Amino acid sequence: MNFKRLFFGPVLPNRDERARKIGALEGVPAMGLDGLGSSAYGPEAALTVLIPLGAAGTGYVEPITAVIVVLLAILYLSYRQTIRAYPSNGGAYTVAKANLGREASLLAAAALMIDYVLNVAVGISAGVAALISAIPSLQPYTLWLCLCILALVTLINLRGTLDAGRLFALPTYTFAGSFFILLAIGIYKAATSGPPPSAPLAQVAGTASAWVLMHAFASGCTAMTGVEAVSNGVGAFREPAVKYAHRTLTAIVLILGILLAGIAYLANAFHIAAMDQSQAGYQSVLSQLATSVVGRGAFYYVAIGSLLCVLALSANTSFTDFPRLCRTIAQDDFLPRPFAVVGRRLVFSVGIAYLALTAGLLLIVFNGITEHLIPLFAIGAFLTFTLSQAGMVVHWRREYAREPSSTARARMGINAVGALATGVAFVIILLAKFTAGAWITLLVIPAVMVLLHSVNRYYAGLKEQMREEAPLAIGAIESPTVLVVVEEWSRLTDKALTFAMHLSKEVIAVHLMALSGPDDVGKRQALEARWADFVEAPARAAGHTPPRLLVLQAQYRRMHEPLIRLLRKIETNHPGRPVAILIPELIKRKWWQYPLHTHRARRLRTKLLQCGSEQVVVINVPWFLEPVASAATVDKKDARAGTLHGASRPA
Amino acid sequence: MNFKRLFFGPVLPNRDERARKIGALEGVPAMGLDGLGSSAYGPEAALTVLIPLGAAGTGYVEPITAVIVVLLAILYLSYRQTIRAYPSNGGAYTVAKANLGREASLLAAAALMIDYVLNVAVGISAGVAALISAIPSLQPYTLWLCLCILALVTLINLRGTLDAGRLFALPTYTFAGSFFILLAIGIYKAATSGPPPSAPLAQVAGTASAWVLMHAFASGCTAMTGVEAVSNGVGAFREPAVKYAHRTLTAIVLILGILLAGIAYLANAFHIAAMDQSQAGYQSVLSQLATSVVGRGAFYYVAIGSLLCVLALSANTSFTDFPRLCRTIAQDDFLPRPFAVVGRRLVFSVGIAYLALTAGLLLIVFNGITEHLIPLFAIGAFLTFTLSQAGMVVHWRREYAREPSSTARARMGINAVGALATGVAFVIILLAKFTAGAWITLLVIPAVMVLLHSVNRYYAGLKEQMREEAPLAIGAIESPTVLVVVEEWSRLTDKALTFAMHLSKEVIAVHLMALSGPDDVGKRQALEARWADFVEAPARAAGHTPPRLLVLQAQYRRMHEPLIRLLRKIETNHPGRPVAILIPELIKRKWWQYPLHTHRARRLRTKLLQCGSEQVVVINVPWFLEPVASAATVDKKDARAGTLHGASRPA
Repeated sequence: MNFKRLFFGPVLPNRDERARKIGALEGVPAMGLDGLGSSAYGPEAALTVLIPLGAAGTGYVEPITAVIVVLLAILYLSYRQTIRAYPSNGGAYTVAKANLGREASLLAAAALMIDYVLNVAVGISAGVAALISAIPSLQPYTLWLCLCILALVTLINLRGTLDAGRLFALPTYTFAGSFFILLAIGIYKAATSGPPPSAPLAQVAGTASAWVLMHAFASGCTAMTGVEAVSNGVGAFREPAVKYAHRTLTAIVLILGILLAGIAYLANAFHIAAMDQSQAGYQSVLSQLATSVVGRGAFYYVAIGSLLCVLALSANTSFTDFPRLCRTIAQDDFLPRPFAVVGRRLVFSVGIAYLALTAGLLLIVFNGITEHLIPLFAIGAFLTFTLSQAGMVVHWRREYAREPSSTARARMGINAVGALATGVAFVIILLAKFTAGAWITLLVIPAVMVLLHSVNRYYAGLKEQMREEAPLAIGAIESPTVLVVVEEWSRLTDKALTFAMHLSKEVIAVHLMALSGPDDVGKRQALEARWADFVEAPARAAGHTPPRLLVLQAQYRRMHEPLIRLLRKIETNHPGRPVAILIPELIKRKWWQYPLHTHRARRLRTKLLQCGSEQVVVINVPWFLEPVASAATVDKKDARAGTLHGASRPA
Repeated sequence: MNFKRLFFGPVLPNRDERARKIGALEGVPAMGLDGLGSSAYGPEAALTVLIPLGAAGTGYVEPITAVIVVLLAILYLSYRQTIRAYPSNGGAYTVAKANLGREASLLAAAALMIDYVLNVAVGISAGVAALISAIPSLQPYTLWLCLCILALVTLINLRGTLDAGRLFALPTYTFAGSFFILLAIGIYKAATSGPPPSAPLAQVAGTASAWVLMHAFASGCTAMTGVEAVSNGVGAFREPAVKYAHRTLTAIVLILGILLAGIAYLANAFHIAAMDQSQAGYQSVLSQLATSVVGRGAFYYVAIGSLLCVLALSANTSFTDFPRLCRTIAQDDFLPRPFAVVGRRLVFSVGIAYLALTAGLLLIVFNGITEHLIPLFAIGAFLTFTLSQAGMVVHWRREYAREPSSTARARMGINAVGALATGVAFVIILLAKFTAGAWITLLVIPAVMVLLHSVNRYYAGLKEQMREEAPLAIGAIESPTVLVVVEEWSRLTDKALTFAMHLSKEVIAVHLMALSGPDDVGKRQALEARWADFVEAPARAAGHTPPRLLVLQAQYRRMHEPLIRLLRKIETNHPGRPVAILIPELIKRKWWQYPLHTHRARRLRTKLLQCGSEQVVVINVPWFLEPVASAATVDKKDARAGTLHGASRPA
């Protein structure tokens, strides 16, 4: 108990919910790390595609980035509208459900869920890869580093989104600040002194084909994944949630846009090209850029260090959004219900744990190197962008139909442009990366949708079976037959029999012979010898029908078999009469007591509940070894654990 | 279920006990493999000590073996008597308990238990080592081979001692037969043609010191461990158990004695010395002997192959005896009770599993090479020999005091010689192997004894607390307060409320709010809106006190906290009144249903039983999703599993 408290913090009461919401300051680290981190690999990915063009390639990076930044601006405007229109949860799932129908929403759900899981694995392994390219001696520990970072992010998120937002604020804002300074210095240098002497001579290797440019654009688009994050996590913000969500989105997009534009400008100005990762002496684009601008001083290490942190922690965005998305889907009965249950720190712990497990599995399977997963990842992101934007178009069309206004028309226009742009980008990415693995996503998404549907069918069947629209059907009260399982004459037996006689006039004590083996027959005689004096006489004296003692053979040394046989017999003789089986149970409170007992009571309870019938209930009569704690001490103990103080009050 | 049945066989009923006992034919493989296998390493160990003496060393092997064979004969006679005197279980523990007192018996218990665990690890790793010296390419798989053999022996023994005895009979008798033939041919050759040309020239390296001879004797004595096995497992034999146990003991000792004497004679005649195991070209003594006698033909491979099997399976002796020993100790409340419970195949499965786990752990820790454990192992064996023999001396002295007779005196003499001889051997082994690790045993044995005592103290305290010598104390019947946990209006709620009203006039329905999180408040209104019409009205109409609906806040999203608070309040207002908490529970019967539910009912039951008080009982009302199987179909299913057919009958 104390162990859990130490790691995850005390259990938070429902009333703390408001205090646990986040503002824009925590919102950027909580939801923006994915987006900000992509400023590192987006331009790098585009430049990598341009490597074959030689030095001329860097000339194309500016127009490509310009298109991406325009697309980013469109997405920004679109998502601002989405957040305002769906202030409780504006994710693609919700928007599609409201506007495009059930199947489209499940398509968005499947794409988003896969995307978030991939984002964790890809983000962490990209961060670790960057770390290793800085410190190559860490290479043998790749997988362990990945798993440690995953464990850290999981733990912090299980403590709550607020804790994660606060803790990760330092690296986030250090990264943004140091790269802003870096870009400013670089732009100043480039503007005043022209290209530095280190720049290689431009060597034209021919003009780029449209296909290469499209490919470079598609790769660069990975810089935009993460923009939808805020819309999926609006529920995490404090009121007015729309305001804080808007601020957060603005901050993220602004930082990202400036970084992208600045990096593209400087890459061209300083003639920085991507290097081949598989060759010795590899340096990332941002590392080359920082070296060119400020050299390898302390500032370089602060900037690159914070970049590594942002990359490694970019998984945090998934940890903020995935559990909230799953919760929404689970509330619609398309995911298991535990996803909708708030955990000890007022976050959806099951979703967090599930995300950590699946991402951890991916990391282990791919041994910590997940670059093959990157194509799969961009597909899902742009599919959900498109679905969300298309859903918003339908939304505004309906608004317009209800009440025609130029505002609604303008908004529809923005979302339509967004839908078109992201749709085109989706098709380009799909074509460009189809053979690189994007086709896998097209198989996995329908499979996930089938799973979601089958979960829904199960719950629908359950509801159908449990639903009752009629009032209580209570007939004549028939006293139940109570069977008491007795092992020997003890204080536990005494208590159980007394309680049984409180419940019913028909009490049968059942003793099972030879439970421990063929020669375990000694207790029967002792019990039979005492029955008349110890049970029947006092029961009669108190005016009760004395309980019978029934001895059964347990040929297979299992309690439930002869008991179920007896139950069937009672059912046949007295159809409809309720039967209660009373199981006395010694309560073990210390771990070392477990191997010292045979736990027959617990196994019997499980078996009886499994194999019982409609008429049968199981009654557990506990027996406490130590004198049970008084109400006062229990309250004190629970209060110390911070769990009961004022926890409940009868309404 | 079918998986278990496939691996372990169907569950055996108590009435099959007699049919599952073994005779002498199965007794030798079941209990004798340890003893027979030691014929391979006993002479080898003695000869290894003699290596420094050069060729002259083999000259000492005959007198040393002669002493060992005489000691073996004494042990044989002594253990025959022990078996007859304690026909149910004649192990050192029982003999010491009856004659030397509690502490001596626990000393024997600890020594025996350690010995059996070590025997498994040492036996298996010795067998694998022999296999690897024959096929060196298997060397990288040492640990895996050890664990596979351990798993095989464990599985067979979990199926029953009879199965193990039958299955292992083939290698056992092949080994005995082929080595008898080998010895016969060898003796014939040695007698007719003198030493073969391959024998090296005798080169006297000086006479042996007494210490070296003592050391060689102590090493050779490892050939005798396993002789006590039969006395520890008399309970496994069918009636008349003493007769079959005697036959088994005779067979084992006879085979072992002939092998030891024959090997010693031939080692001397053919001048076979031990080789240094750490050097290339190593061959074991028996392999050299077989090569010298019959060459490397098919016969050689049959003999050495069966020897490898016997060595690898020598662990089987422990699997026969250890669980039976633990059972006896557990019946005296010095080991946890599960050790005394007969498992599905009428053997003590917990003891078998425990033995496999601890031996497996030893194998893993020592990476499959356990030669360092051998000294520890001989100590325990000779300590128990001595205790058992000394106990028998006391036994016969008592017999003699009761009824003086020359038989009792003669028997006492035999056991006294046995005690003296094994006692001397124990001291020699202890001295000779003290620094080699025997001192560890002297630390571990007292530690185990302390553990046994603490288990006993726990059970004594338990008995003291549970014992009741008074009759049922039943006073005025007070109807219990029944609390019914309701989530929403459903058929399950209907059933639970109806049952509660069968039990008591005072029923309170408790609804817990916000269990899934702060905003989970919707069910309350629906429930409150229906209460009057659906519950109160029909209850009044049927003449019952209508159940109240109480809504509690679950601030910490745990059901038990507000409920326990309510319980404390009821207890304060109505001291001594029994309270029953009724928990409706959906029964899940398929594995895939588990992740789809929140399992609050089960957690609530556990918590209530843990934190409840003397007045509280917990009632489980099951709800079955599918129409519950009728008595007929359940019987059919259970009969198919071979578990219920005629399993029980009311006495």
